[in-house]
Amino acid sequence: MRLHGILVFGADQPRGLAGECRERSAVPRLVDHEARRRTIAQAVFEVIGSRGLEAVSLRDVAAQAGVSMGAVQHYFKSKDQMLLFALDHVRDRALARMRHELSALGEPTAKEMIRAAARAMLPVDEQGRQEAIVSGAFYAVATVNPSYAGLLREGYARLLGVSRQSLRAAEQAGEITEAIDTDREAAMLFFMIQGLIGPVLIGILSPADALALVDHQLDRIFR
Amino acid sequence: MRLHGILVFGADQPRGLAGECRERSAVPRLVDHEARRRTIAQAVFEVIGSRGLEAVSLRDVAAQAGVSMGAVQHYFKSKDQMLLFALDHVRDRALARMRHELSALGEPTAKEMIRAAARAMLPVDEQGRQEAIVSGAFYAVATVNPSYAGLLREGYARLLGVSRQSLRAAEQAGEITEAIDTDREAAMLFFMIQGLIGPVLIGILSPADALALVDHQLDRIFR
Repeated sequence: MRLHGILVFGADQPRGLAGECRERSAVPRLVDHEARRRTIAQAVFEVIGSRGLEAVSLRDVAAQAGVSMGAVQHYFKSKDQMLLFALDHVRDRALARMRHELSALGEPTAKEMIRAAARAMLPVDEQGRQEAIVSGAFYAVATVNPSYAGLLREGYARLLGVSRQSLRAAEQAGEITEAIDTDREAAMLFFMIQGLIGPVLIGILSPADALALVDHQLDRIFR
Repeated sequence: MRLHGILVFGADQPRGLAGECRERSAVPRLVDHEARRRTIAQAVFEVIGSRGLEAVSLRDVAAQAGVSMGAVQHYFKSKDQMLLFALDHVRDRALARMRHELSALGEPTAKEMIRAAARAMLPVDEQGRQEAIVSGAFYAVATVNPSYAGLLREGYARLLGVSRQSLRAAEQAGEITEAIDTDREAAMLFFMIQGLIGPVLIGILSPADALALVDHQLDRIFR
């Protein structure tokens, strides 16, 4: 679910979960509303990232965003709506960061691209740490709340798809070791990276150790 | 941190986080206290498993455990103390389940043992699902709370150690494919299994698909 630039709740538009409101609009005055919603989503993100999901209250979010509680209520009709929008926001942020890191590579090989994507998924810097904390909080909610689980499933499926496509493309380019089952390896690599996020965040593995494990897998998969 | 049988807060004993209270006692009357604390921990577990960590209140836990709110307060002086004890309880439960599954194997090969341990870590049945939900909730708290992070680090380190020892033993028994770096493979296998838990719980992977990925890794590692 992508919500880029679609964030306007007009008075006569339907209200519901963030994902139900996908209307795009070219009317300039609406841009402020989008910016305001993103500011609030970023505030939710920051409150979760520093104090956890349980700490998210209307009051804290308003204070963090520097807006009134009424303004938060204007944009989000329920806490769930606000959190789901914030979840989408964190994913957009993470994807934008990944794209940025990939574009910095110039003309990377498939292996270099996958490594950079893995690096962007791991909490190796402060931004990545914050995103991993927020994602972890949402994951915990998703285990008992189907709306969140649906969003997370989409996110997993999309990233897993990208992982598979990357290895298939590399295989066609002759870059993969023989006897490698690319679809399976793509899944294993993706799930291993997912499994490294928590240990790095909790401090049992350094980011460098985690990346060394990724490299070890990539060295085995690629010629 | 293990709290088996050490669960008594007498009037003149220090109070604090569960981990600070490690005194063992052989006095029979104390057994009831331990049972009571375990009952409450199990109630915490059930509330988290069905409604999430945010839903855990003194009232709900007392109702679920079938005891008075005063009784809960008698055994746990703070919500944190209660949750940390419950975290320990869920790990004991998970380890007991793992031991039970391993003992059911009779005389397993190293590969069979590791597969059974992986199966016990994945949410393949209702018990495993509940434990995974509760662990996920604690993980989310641990990302912003050092006491919880410390407990999780210990848990990760212990399981990672078991994973390494198992593969080293298998290597000495000549069961490992040549050119396999057992320590690295043990880490990758462990973290991949960790990374499979969420996707199985959220429903993007079936338990069978997750186990097939584990098998694929094991087939590569073992002769």
